[in-house]
Amino acid sequence: MTAPLALTIGDPAGVGPELAAAAWALSDTEALTPFFVVGSARAVEEAAQRRGITVPICTVKTPDEVADCFAGALPVLDLGDLPYAPGEPDDAGASLALNALVTATGLVRSGAASALVTGPIAKSRLARVGFDHPGQTEFVAEACGIAAENAVMMLAGPSLRVVPITVHVSLRSVPDLLNAELIRNRAAITAAALVRDYGIAKPRLAVAGLNPHAGEDGRMGTEDAELVAPAVALLHEAGIDAFGPLPPDTMFHAEAREGYDVAICMYHDQALIPMKALDFDAGVNVTLGLPIIRTSPDHGTAFGIAGTGKARVGPTIAALRMAGECAARRALT
Amino acid sequence: MTAPLALTIGDPAGVGPELAAAAWALSDTEALTPFFVVGSARAVEEAAQRRGITVPICTVKTPDEVADCFAGALPVLDLGDLPYAPGEPDDAGASLALNALVTATGLVRSGAASALVTGPIAKSRLARVGFDHPGQTEFVAEACGIAAENAVMMLAGPSLRVVPITVHVSLRSVPDLLNAELIRNRAAITAAALVRDYGIAKPRLAVAGLNPHAGEDGRMGTEDAELVAPAVALLHEAGIDAFGPLPPDTMFHAEAREGYDVAICMYHDQALIPMKALDFDAGVNVTLGLPIIRTSPDHGTAFGIAGTGKARVGPTIAALRMAGECAARRALT
Repeated sequence: MTAPLALTIGDPAGVGPELAAAAWALSDTEALTPFFVVGSARAVEEAAQRRGITVPICTVKTPDEVADCFAGALPVLDLGDLPYAPGEPDDAGASLALNALVTATGLVRSGAASALVTGPIAKSRLARVGFDHPGQTEFVAEACGIAAENAVMMLAGPSLRVVPITVHVSLRSVPDLLNAELIRNRAAITAAALVRDYGIAKPRLAVAGLNPHAGEDGRMGTEDAELVAPAVALLHEAGIDAFGPLPPDTMFHAEAREGYDVAICMYHDQALIPMKALDFDAGVNVTLGLPIIRTSPDHGTAFGIAGTGKARVGPTIAALRMAGECAARRALT
Repeated sequence: MTAPLALTIGDPAGVGPELAAAAWALSDTEALTPFFVVGSARAVEEAAQRRGITVPICTVKTPDEVADCFAGALPVLDLGDLPYAPGEPDDAGASLALNALVTATGLVRSGAASALVTGPIAKSRLARVGFDHPGQTEFVAEACGIAAENAVMMLAGPSLRVVPITVHVSLRSVPDLLNAELIRNRAAITAAALVRDYGIAKPRLAVAGLNPHAGEDGRMGTEDAELVAPAVALLHEAGIDAFGPLPPDTMFHAEAREGYDVAICMYHDQALIPMKALDFDAGVNVTLGLPIIRTSPDHGTAFGIAGTGKARVGPTIAALRMAGECAARRALT
């Protein structure tokens, strides 16, 4: 039997605690792989009450206790007894969030848990308590001994998978940050992960152009010919089924999407605009290139609506489901 | 009664002739406003035969003959007797396309036709026969005495309307081409057109940021604070209901779209990626800011599939329908 999934609580003042509880309440209906929360039993319990859902809690000391109690209660590996104060982040909560991330990563690295699902944190809050990574992805990569640039973000929903080659940078800086090696490396990491964790024997990679119409023979920019096309050639040499550069505007409609398994995109919004237009509530953020499986719901702490019951559980369910599917696939191999 | 719509044949070696015929064949089912083709009766007739559809042709000398024959035949204002040679563009065909564009624009300017619907041309082909405009839009603007920069392209489909502020330029050049005045001007032209031609009393304009997360307080680019926010302020001063800059990736899902009538986008793919992902086969290219109504199906000549029957008539139907609706609205005012 696969080990359970580790779900970190995220910042306890955000929507993490209530979504953990809400996901457990639907775990039967959604046939989720058993999971446990790494965080605060009290915060999860009070968040469930506030959301108006009945969620019995069972405190566990180790992941191997999860299987026995998951059917009847939400297992929590308890790291701290904080009062639940939704929308009011403080350093104690940030410390708990950081502790949960460190603990859960260790449990997954050791194999005691089969995948890491991270709840939302506020980077600026964690920085105040000593976290010196740009985000959870970089932390997890380092904890796994992987250079951050080889940890690749993929957003995956029911309609589409996308990988942005550049991510949280200004649009102006994108062209100079791109080069054929970078595109090749990240695309190759993506292809390997689709084989290993998604059961796609020969992944088809649609590589987007940078410019409108993929540059239209240089009339609208030279990067598609100079950087993107060579990257596609390098991928071919490596035996990867990649094609492009494609005109970005015509590669995301339903018929076009049937022709590939993942879209390799040149910048954040080229990837995330179609992703969120099509699969707003069901997009999962996955980190590829790690020795462990790591997913997260594709939203932030949402301090503004924490505790109001408005936060949607769809993304958390989707992140848990995908982690469970990938873990099951690895268990078979 | 509204005057008929003028549909130009486009390049006769492209998909224009067959789509004109196919649209007429569906005009009853689709309840289209009567239209006539400006071009070659022979090309349209032979294209219909090749597509396997029965389309009787009636040749008209002036648009006022259209009403009487439209129910039983496709009216064509015949400018040239060319053999139909799909996929084989030549100068004679380009001359016909240019002549059709000039003639149809004149008929709409005079009021003899109520709207201009342009079929697809190949710009490089028309350039060979003396056409010195970047595209049909610039030609039509000049013919109407409007500076090309005040002719605003909107893409409109069932799910979404988008206006790209910059269009056919490299991604690299976008940030330096943007300024608050340009955004303000084009957005204001858009708002006025939505009132006049789309019957929206108080249009709501969602203005996209340039950078991921709309710059996130300057952490990913300064243009959103420096250019886009001031443009929104200028629009407010002008009494226009505009808001933004919005994070581009979260403004195109179904619930977000309910909050606005048009998305003002900073660059081609920011506008066209969501448009085509959502409404691939039904997007209409509309030129706003002109004294006349002008629409076109949002695709090119498709020389490669001309004459094969593969070209989809959806975009032509959509362009004719939108032109008819806008013309009817102007006729009422």
